[in-house]
Amino acid sequence: ELRHKLDKMHPADVAYILEALPLDERLMVWDLVKAERDGEILLEVSDAVRETLIANMDSDELVAAAESLDADELADLAPDLPHEVIQDVFQSLSVEEREQLRAAMSYPEDSVGSIMDFEMVTVREDVTLEVVLRYLRRFDELPDHTDQLFVLDRDERLKGVLPLNKLLINDPESEVADVMISDFVHLEPDDDAEEAAQAFERYDLVSAPVVDRDDRLVGRVTVNAVVDFIREESESELLAQAGLREEEDIFASVWNSVKNRWTWLAINLVTAFIASRVIGAFEGSIEKLVALAALMPIVAGIGGNSGNQTITMIVRAIALGQIQPESARRLLHKELGVALINGLVWGGLLGVVSWWLYHSFQLGLVMTGAMTLNLLLAATVGVVIPMTMQKFGRDPALGSSVLITAVTDSGGFFIFLGLATLFLL
Amino acid sequence: ELRHKLDKMHPADVAYILEALPLDERLMVWDLVKAERDGEILLEVSDAVRETLIANMDSDELVAAAESLDADELADLAPDLPHEVIQDVFQSLSVEEREQLRAAMSYPEDSVGSIMDFEMVTVREDVTLEVVLRYLRRFDELPDHTDQLFVLDRDERLKGVLPLNKLLINDPESEVADVMISDFVHLEPDDDAEEAAQAFERYDLVSAPVVDRDDRLVGRVTVNAVVDFIREESESELLAQAGLREEEDIFASVWNSVKNRWTWLAINLVTAFIASRVIGAFEGSIEKLVALAALMPIVAGIGGNSGNQTITMIVRAIALGQIQPESARRLLHKELGVALINGLVWGGLLGVVSWWLYHSFQLGLVMTGAMTLNLLLAATVGVVIPMTMQKFGRDPALGSSVLITAVTDSGGFFIFLGLATLFLL
Ligand SMILES: [Mg+2]
Ligand SMILES: [Mg+2]
Ligand SMILES: [Mg+2]
Ligand SMILES: [Mg+2]
Ligand SMILES: [Mg+2]
Ligand SMILES: [Mg+2]
Ligand SMILES: [Mg+2]
Ligand SMILES: [Mg+2]
Ligand SMILES: [Mg+2]
Ligand SMILES: [Mg+2]
Ligand SMILES: [Mg+2]
Ligand SMILES: [Mg+2]
Ligand SMILES: [Mg+2]
Repeated sequence: ELRHKLDKMHPADVAYILEALPLDERLMVWDLVKAERDGEILLEVSDAVRETLIANMDSDELVAAAESLDADELADLAPDLPHEVIQDVFQSLSVEEREQLRAAMSYPEDSVGSIMDFEMVTVREDVTLEVVLRYLRRFDELPDHTDQLFVLDRDERLKGVLPLNKLLINDPESEVADVMISDFVHLEPDDDAEEAAQAFERYDLVSAPVVDRDDRLVGRVTVNAVVDFIREESESELLAQAGLREEEDIFASVWNSVKNRWTWLAINLVTAFIASRVIGAFEGSIEKLVALAALMPIVAGIGGNSGNQTITMIVRAIALGQIQPESARRLLHKELGVALINGLVWGGLLGVVSWWLYHSFQLGLVMTGAMTLNLLLAATVGVVIPMTMQKFGRDPALGSSVLITAVTDSGGFFIFLGLATLFLL
Repeated sequence: ELRHKLDKMHPADVAYILEALPLDERLMVWDLVKAERDGEILLEVSDAVRETLIANMDSDELVAAAESLDADELADLAPDLPHEVIQDVFQSLSVEEREQLRAAMSYPEDSVGSIMDFEMVTVREDVTLEVVLRYLRRFDELPDHTDQLFVLDRDERLKGVLPLNKLLINDPESEVADVMISDFVHLEPDDDAEEAAQAFERYDLVSAPVVDRDDRLVGRVTVNAVVDFIREESESELLAQAGLREEEDIFASVWNSVKNRWTWLAINLVTAFIASRVIGAFEGSIEKLVALAALMPIVAGIGGNSGNQTITMIVRAIALGQIQPESARRLLHKELGVALINGLVWGGLLGVVSWWLYHSFQLGLVMTGAMTLNLLLAATVGVVIPMTMQKFGRDPALGSSVLITAVTDSGGFFIFLGLATLFLL
């Protein structure tokens, strides 16, 4: 009965159920899924869950599943498939499909080529719309997301696009050339997928042609692939901020989870150890004035929090292309201004509290001074790190939060304990 | 000459330029933009930049800009417009548009109603495709993202959808009723926009009808609105994690930036102060063994890092609907397993280092024990907080990172200093 329900469900819904089930139940449900649907469902599940499913299928099942897919879909699945399965499938493809599969697999992840498909409907520019309408009626179905036809010349060069909208509202006697749009958005396979996503967002596209250097049509990108790309990007950004390498199957084994998370824990341990050594250098001061031990985490913590605000904003703005190198100085000035106000307000408040708690006006002054200086440090580093990364062509988001927290922790301890040693002891 | 260039650009491109310019240059460019394009460009810029532009336009300009928009677009802009401008515009609308504007403004943010528009093309089910084709030819243009027509009965109830694809491939003599799809995805205006976004992702939609309780068609959602929604959601999630209230204009004044960021800084200050008081309670122990001051931030920091990994993963899984309450115990067991391994491995390592640094085997043992216990605490809280929030219908993402860091900081200091006091002194 469950089998019957599964048969009637959309593959994405089956994928969703599989993702929400613990491993044993997941494999039980997976066995109930009709073999001919395995391929489309494997495409929909998350990478982590896909691995668990594939690990429990034998070669024949995998070959059968893979053969049901288009070349572009196969290319997405290929990295997770055993080598001999791919070779078997490859044998079964037509020459054209082999070419497409080779092309699709040759583009780097996060390129336009990696998210494009090959299901284009093309027409000639010198025919009438009536001819086009009759041509379309010969199809059993049009490819998903066909909102426009691609107009090619005799050399297979892309001359324009014919939106179905235009096809429908114009006189059937008109020629394609008179109705088509020649000034259209087109992509190249080596473009960043992120650029393509921005084009889809800005110009509200449903599909866009992909052409090579000679204007020859090689594929198309559709909005559903772009939506998936955007979701995956923002997921992995969110996860990366928390130090998770990639989407984790929540029901992964303890061991797999440990592997997925250990890198960042290790990095964090190193930075925490450095901060600890900074404190260690001032043990003499702490011994004389133990209040320092209680107050120092406040200085470090606020610096980290404020620095993360700055760096997150700058990294976002860089990603959106809103920051030119000329703006660096202006932004730094602004962030320093914000830090100064926060330092005087919050640092002042904490200074008064420390004075009251420990009956030492000087201690309060040191607290205010240290918080202000650490906030200024956080602002400087929060602007300079991402701008420098960008200058050297690195991804400014990568590890930005860990880096700034490391600076504000060690820096905060050093500033506070240093000032205290100078002025209080 | 710049004016001429701006005239030929897509409104989204002009918006992009305006966002990347400091305030004075931004207003200079804004003056060069043709008045009739003001409306569509105001829709495209970010909320923060929109405020700066609107603040520099007079009532007449604003009324003119607003009058150029559709009802759904006007509803998006309305919260930023002065009251008298909205009233002026309201007077100029037709009865139908007023009704639409009222409806659009009545739906809460992040509901389907807030992202829908009213540009539907509808047909009857008892006509032939030929009639539909002739009907469409009378349009000057079809609304953007028209991938399907909506089929209504005599009572204006939605009976099905007619994809343009089907219209094009089928025999023009067929009747709409025989070709239309009656089992289609439809939304209600009070649904969460996030649910709509998930439906678009799963079923690869371009548009979806919105119906009321009586199946009457009230609007439609298109994929471009969904893409914008997804981007805004993920942006604000990223920014919220860093304690920024909303998208900040990077060229905002110092004062506006301070206002945007102060809440989280204040919360962070409170939690840091509590942690500081926990340390304060153990000042006697630290005075006797100053090494504790240097080692305690490591215990707190690793707990925070590991807890953030757990809570981020659980929050994501809840957002994707992948966690049933029954799974809580299983997930907790798994996370405790991960924490135990990390505690023994990293805690063991740090224990050995502490032993070597401070020549005290007992101190090393306390370090290992405290790290393990704090990691177990982090795992427990990382699972329990979001699951509890979800149970009480609250958003589990909200402040999750601050909350868990507060627990692991105060908890880490308490566990480490407490163990040290018990076993070392
Ligand atoms: Mg099966
Ligand atoms: Mg992937
Ligand atoms: Mg691909
Ligand atoms: Mg496909
Ligand atoms: Mg046919
Ligand atoms: Mg858009
Ligand atoms: Mg203007
Ligand atoms: Mg908004
Ligand atoms: Mg709206
Ligand atoms: Mg519209
Ligand atoms: Mg016409
Ligand atoms: Mg999809
Ligand atoms: Mg910290």
